[in-house]
Amino acid sequence: MDSDYEKKTAAAKSLDWIKEGMLVGLGSGSTAAHMIRGLGEKVAAGLSIKGVPSSDTTAQLAREAGIPLITLEEAGKLDVNIDGADEFDANLQLIKGGGGALLREKIVAYNSKFNIVISDSSKQVERLGKFKLPLETIPFATKNIITELDEMGLSPELRKKGDEIYKTDEQNYIVDVDVLEQNDLVALNNILINIPGVVETGLFLDTTDVIIMGKDEGTVIFKK
Amino acid sequence: MDSDYEKKTAAAKSLDWIKEGMLVGLGSGSTAAHMIRGLGEKVAAGLSIKGVPSSDTTAQLAREAGIPLITLEEAGKLDVNIDGADEFDANLQLIKGGGGALLREKIVAYNSKFNIVISDSSKQVERLGKFKLPLETIPFATKNIITELDEMGLSPELRKKGDEIYKTDEQNYIVDVDVLEQNDLVALNNILINIPGVVETGLFLDTTDVIIMGKDEGTVIFKK
Repeated sequence: MDSDYEKKTAAAKSLDWIKEGMLVGLGSGSTAAHMIRGLGEKVAAGLSIKGVPSSDTTAQLAREAGIPLITLEEAGKLDVNIDGADEFDANLQLIKGGGGALLREKIVAYNSKFNIVISDSSKQVERLGKFKLPLETIPFATKNIITELDEMGLSPELRKKGDEIYKTDEQNYIVDVDVLEQNDLVALNNILINIPGVVETGLFLDTTDVIIMGKDEGTVIFKK
Repeated sequence: MDSDYEKKTAAAKSLDWIKEGMLVGLGSGSTAAHMIRGLGEKVAAGLSIKGVPSSDTTAQLAREAGIPLITLEEAGKLDVNIDGADEFDANLQLIKGGGGALLREKIVAYNSKFNIVISDSSKQVERLGKFKLPLETIPFATKNIITELDEMGLSPELRKKGDEIYKTDEQNYIVDVDVLEQNDLVALNNILINIPGVVETGLFLDTTDVIIMGKDEGTVIFKK
């Protein structure tokens, strides 16, 4: 089964969790885009919800889908957040940030009462790290951070977009690192977050409540 | 003795640590400004060093003083860093960030082989926290962060500049919190840094090697 069909199936299933009047976090990336279009159809059919987008790209997509938007500031705590992932394991731990929106995605997830991740089946892994872990970094510190990460054996790479350095919505940089050989991701995350100039990591270790994975014709649900 | 005289005395003394050819971190604030002017005089007299400024304001001041500047990126590791503090205790722990430059100041300190803090005697405290602890925060998350800090009993206040929200060199916000009642600052710092959207805190707990305090006519030196 192709992965786009699985993404659509997972995205459609996630809409079952959205009830009248809810404040909804809107994730970023191709799987979340399916969810946003589906949610837009429900809104057109009369569902009253408000969305908080996790990136400028998602805000644009949600406006096109006709979803009323508010800021996180206006919303406070969200009822539910639906977002994709680049990798997940059986313990509902994720790597996110392939699309570069990890900082706002993590802020939205952290401020949501219930977090749903939607994915195709190719993202499920035995062990996180085949996908490179993105770190959002302050430009002023990035060269020194790369030197330190290299000394830690993490094979850091500054993310580019064509010939230019990639910039996040917050005008920071992304450094992608190899964590496949790392055994204690909680400890690693703590080391990384304590390096001055590392703003956030793409490790989402304890935020997820449910993962909906599209698999062949149907969905598989993983719960805490 | 007035505090400005003590600042000048401490700043003058710190220049003894600077040797020919060094890469020097240049702190921010009124005490560091005395050091920068003094360093500029040494450069005019023939000393060859290069400086890395910790704020846009300091960069401007250093240029006026005739100090050759390079970026942290070009410098890599610095030989010595000289900066002020808003408060310090007998364990060489600091609160910094009154001037709003804590993020770059911490990055420069972290990337320096030797850190000197210069201060007047009014900044020495038995217990950190009479001065409010500044946190640099991502605007997108700041309202929610303030709610959480309030629930933690830290009496958060969003820093203003006149009627406007104060913005850092990185275009982030500053939230000042009350930590006087907190007994374990290492644990508190770890909790704060793990809140998504908190970029950095003004707690400098283990970076300082020497504190030079101006006291009356002379200086007092605190070492690790």
